Amino acid sequence: EAMSAFQYLLVYNSISFTFAAMAAATIFLWFGRSEVAPPYRTALVISGLVTAIAAYHYFRIFQSWEAAFLFENGIVSNTGYAFNDAYRYVDWLLTVPLLLIELVLVMRLSREETVSKATRLGVAAALMVILGYPGEIADSNGTRALWGFLSTIPFAYIVYELFSGLSRAIETQPPQVRSLLKQARLLTFASWGFYPIVYMAPFAGLDGPTANTTIQIGYTIADLVAKVGLGILIYIIAIRKSEIEM
Amino acid sequence: EAMSAFQYLLVYNSISFTFAAMAAATIFLWFGRSEVAPPYRTALVISGLVTAIAAYHYFRIFQSWEAAFLFENGIVSNTGYAFNDAYRYVDWLLTVPLLLIELVLVMRLSREETVSKATRLGVAAALMVILGYPGEIADSNGTRALWGFLSTIPFAYIVYELFSGLSRAIETQPPQVRSLLKQARLLTFASWGFYPIVYMAPFAGLDGPTANTTIQIGYTIADLVAKVGLGILIYIIAIRKSEIEM
Ligand SMILES: CC1=C(/C=C/C(C)=C/C=C/C(C)=C/C=O)C(C)(C)CCC1
Ligand SMILES: CC1=C(/C=C/C(C)=C/C=C/C(C)=C/C=O)C(C)(C)CCC1
Repeated sequence: EAMSAFQYLLVYNSISFTFAAMAAATIFLWFGRSEVAPPYRTALVISGLVTAIAAYHYFRIFQSWEAAFLFENGIVSNTGYAFNDAYRYVDWLLTVPLLLIELVLVMRLSREETVSKATRLGVAAALMVILGYPGEIADSNGTRALWGFLSTIPFAYIVYELFSGLSRAIETQPPQVRSLLKQARLLTFASWGFYPIVYMAPFAGLDGPTANTTIQIGYTIADLVAKVGLGILIYIIAIRKSEIEM
Repeated sequence: EAMSAFQYLLVYNSISFTFAAMAAATIFLWFGRSEVAPPYRTALVISGLVTAIAAYHYFRIFQSWEAAFLFENGIVSNTGYAFNDAYRYVDWLLTVPLLLIELVLVMRLSREETVSKATRLGVAAALMVILGYPGEIADSNGTRALWGFLSTIPFAYIVYELFSGLSRAIETQPPQVRSLLKQARLLTFASWGFYPIVYMAPFAGLDGPTANTTIQIGYTIADLVAKVGLGILIYIIAIRKSEIEM
């Protein structure tokens, strides 16, 4: 069945919106760098890198969407060029390790612990993304389920490491920022947990253009929360901690 | 009926003009950041983000206008690709909350009040824009009126909150900048009030290309005042206040 004009435009405009939001967040975070105390600058640089990389990929996703569908006289048809699902996975391959490094830095562990945690989490993140991709492009729900399951193993490990690590780190923080840090943790888990749920859309009986639209919109919302939402929270935390320490 | 060459070119050139104005304002506001005292820098960064986001959308609107109409041998015809009305709404979805945050920051309320006001106004702004869109693309004036009415409810709430909040904030400002702040308030209300008036163009009996041209030019003028005009006023206010405090 063909994609409806509504579905086509909803994805089209959501992707354009997200490109603009990612680019704007990048500039905001990088300008914010000079407003905070030196120990928090790296966090803002990295948050801005995450949104910058995402802005690049949303630009490409936009172009790929335009190339894949023809919207003429109110009717959507396929051009024969495939929409490139891989941009999101390539984006995650870069941004998930960066987000993890940021969270590890926030924990302020010893140097050895930082390096070993960052390495283990980075490898797990790469595995998670690489194992998820064959399922994303699979035609059969069985194949999708299999790769999704494999990808969930490193995902569970990441969630466990982060949760226990972050909980301990939050205890050692000044009381004024503890609730903000808890919000950042909540936002991270809620948005990360959203990705595998979106991935499962085809299992809910959705198919064809409806499944595709749901997945595109779902990942887009998750990206906005996980990247822009977290970036703004990290900016606020950095400003507060700078005030306390200065 | 077909669009006249005059109408086509008027919109075409106005959009190009506005792209250039928004881009120029962005650079001016961001360079201005290092000319003002630290407490006013965020206001300039955000003003510049608003014009940057608008520049992006005017660029896309321009491309969409070119794609939608063919202007050949002095005659304008439709290409079959729809002009994407949504770019303006997507732009507002990002820029109206940013402008509101800026105005709330200018009020210098307590931290809790700032967060609660910014949240409530942000939600109201999103509702206003989302409820307005189905009316904008509706073919019947009845549908347009219905969604326009629904959109006016959150709009009225925003205007009320801003007016009462800004009036109180202005009282506490140094006398040298009070009249400038009153100008900023006037400019905000006059330009914001212009959007729903433009939206009502089809109710005045305008239709087809004439209605479309009127709406495009109307929103473009409103955007120039609300974004570039306000940005420059905020720059002047920030410079004055920096002088007073240093
Ligand atoms: C568990 C799981 C997945 C998890 C994806 C996640 C958790 C992505 C996170 C992305 C982020 C946070 C990007 C922001 O920068 C996949 C790959 C969908 C495949 C199905 C199983
Ligand atoms: C009340 C109302 C509207 C109000 C729009 C406004 C107030 C837009 C403001 C935009 C700004 C300020 C952009 C600049 O950044 C709509 C949506 C036209 C629909 C009809 C009812």
